[in-house]
Amino acid sequence: MREVRLSIVGFGVVGRGVTEVIRRKRAEIKEKFGLDLRVVAIVDLWGAVLASSDGKSGNEIDVDKVLDALQRGKADGLSPRESLETHGIKVEDMQSLEVIKEVEHDVMVEATPTNVESDGEPGTSHILEALKAGRHVVTSNKGPLALHFKKLMRAAERADRKIGFEATVGGAMPIISLREALAGNEILSIKGILNGTCNYILTRMSEENLPFEHALREAQEIGIAEADPKSDVLGVDTAVKLVILANALLGLDASYKDVSVTGITEITPEALNLAKNNGYVIKLIGEVDRDGKLEVAPKLVPKTHPLNVSGTLNAALLKTDLAGEIVVVGRGAGGIEAASAIIGDVIRIFRSS
Amino acid sequence: MREVRLSIVGFGVVGRGVTEVIRRKRAEIKEKFGLDLRVVAIVDLWGAVLASSDGKSGNEIDVDKVLDALQRGKADGLSPRESLETHGIKVEDMQSLEVIKEVEHDVMVEATPTNVESDGEPGTSHILEALKAGRHVVTSNKGPLALHFKKLMRAAERADRKIGFEATVGGAMPIISLREALAGNEILSIKGILNGTCNYILTRMSEENLPFEHALREAQEIGIAEADPKSDVLGVDTAVKLVILANALLGLDASYKDVSVTGITEITPEALNLAKNNGYVIKLIGEVDRDGKLEVAPKLVPKTHPLNVSGTLNAALLKTDLAGEIVVVGRGAGGIEAASAIIGDVIRIFRSS
Repeated sequence: MREVRLSIVGFGVVGRGVTEVIRRKRAEIKEKFGLDLRVVAIVDLWGAVLASSDGKSGNEIDVDKVLDALQRGKADGLSPRESLETHGIKVEDMQSLEVIKEVEHDVMVEATPTNVESDGEPGTSHILEALKAGRHVVTSNKGPLALHFKKLMRAAERADRKIGFEATVGGAMPIISLREALAGNEILSIKGILNGTCNYILTRMSEENLPFEHALREAQEIGIAEADPKSDVLGVDTAVKLVILANALLGLDASYKDVSVTGITEITPEALNLAKNNGYVIKLIGEVDRDGKLEVAPKLVPKTHPLNVSGTLNAALLKTDLAGEIVVVGRGAGGIEAASAIIGDVIRIFRSS
Repeated sequence: MREVRLSIVGFGVVGRGVTEVIRRKRAEIKEKFGLDLRVVAIVDLWGAVLASSDGKSGNEIDVDKVLDALQRGKADGLSPRESLETHGIKVEDMQSLEVIKEVEHDVMVEATPTNVESDGEPGTSHILEALKAGRHVVTSNKGPLALHFKKLMRAAERADRKIGFEATVGGAMPIISLREALAGNEILSIKGILNGTCNYILTRMSEENLPFEHALREAQEIGIAEADPKSDVLGVDTAVKLVILANALLGLDASYKDVSVTGITEITPEALNLAKNNGYVIKLIGEVDRDGKLEVAPKLVPKTHPLNVSGTLNAALLKTDLAGEIVVVGRGAGGIEAASAIIGDVIRIFRSS
């Protein structure tokens, strides 16, 4: 049995999802992979919980207790820090970089929010610091990889550590790890529906003949679109994911700024109808070919094409030299789905190292 | 650089595809994976070509020369053995089991035809002999795995060797290797379109309002269906693949005989039309759930469902506990596609061992 000590940096939906999955799957992962996953540090803007500070004498955090405290505290209107302290969990005044550097652990799970405007910070610094300290990195944060892919990969190589980033694209849909599944193939181009919110809006517009604003409002009401939907509907999120795929699967050295981006805000029910009557649907497609041209724009997709997936689903088509075209479809979002991808990365790193 | 010596047992479409892929990809595989793939033995019913018998003094077969000789000989109406000998390639009177046992090599590529009626022979004996001799096995032969899955896996474990069988299901479509991509997930059920011939026939029947016999004949004329199409249209091939998936991904210990099988021969254009008018298509579906119930039968699939793929495409839907539903779509057949899956298995075995 190999002990794998994790820090979780950023304790929002994804970070909590990771602890939730560890809670549910720990025994199974021990048995199947011989890995004992222990959370030794959780850090967010409100401070840090460490293995030695949760009131137990053991060498790991009681994640049940932490999740429970946060949930109860929230119901009582408390802040995360208040929630934890009220339930007897000590919160240290340590910041993320300090935790990454000082607390002994094997893999840093970087789950802070994506921010491409801020040069991918604080994620980029977290990742570089973790590698410098000899820790593997698994992340759901798209910013660092969409802006500094080669730099991060080189840092990982120098440190002889790995960066897992399956969770950055397509949530639980396996796509980065298809590199392994398609070993021996050259991937020639990628075409994908990489944003579930846009796909949901376009699906509803087409099904119900709704204008864009109406479908967006509906998506916001049921929690599929965010209050500020710009990053999704303007195509930014798709562009960021496209760049990560292009770098990881096609070996490019592109940045998010290299993508030509058009969103879905100008699409009308009339355009969708016209497409429909000719056997097509309109989808927001992120696309890259061997020449490295990166584009995000609404495109016609034949109704019978495997990329024509509806609702919040994501889909990607990889063109390869031997295996022909491969399409993969899955749920693009959700805390548990992203956590599933993160835990998969952790398992793959420690099985093969 | 690690030298990987391969034998190819069964030199039909798939076996030749493997040498073809090695020819095209050798330099790339050396560079990317540090593996030097060398074919040291080719054996079929007509005899064996060995590294030392091809007229070169080197320690590998000149696959260019072999492929070339076979192609030219075929054009001249010669048998494979005559073709090889005419072009100065020595053919030894050795049988497959002898080659597997006596010729030193690292991985045996088993590419003889699938035969479930003969208890999976000669494939099963080939695989067991190779493991006993300490060789890894990579196979496209469905018979042994559909009939003796657990036995073969146990033999591999005892020998501390691996069996790669990505090529047995879905050709180039990655499905067996999704185990790795979905590490940490439990796969709860599988539903798949696993036979391209049936899918082509059903697609054409539906598109053109054709009766079954007509669409079958068309498929035969363009080389999609075999002269004897029984194994495809009666659902046997789908059942065999379903059993392999169920054993590999759900951990069952099922045999092809455990599957309840209905083919597509009774499907009428009227039934397809009725489905179509209600928003459905009819597909031949292989299905297994957690209870281990295995079934192959024509089923209704909603038109907008990701499993609704047309033509010769294959598709599989995996239901998982964390990642939700994952669909993968790809080309189910073809010599190069199967060879791509075989080479992928070889790379994965030697990268991780």
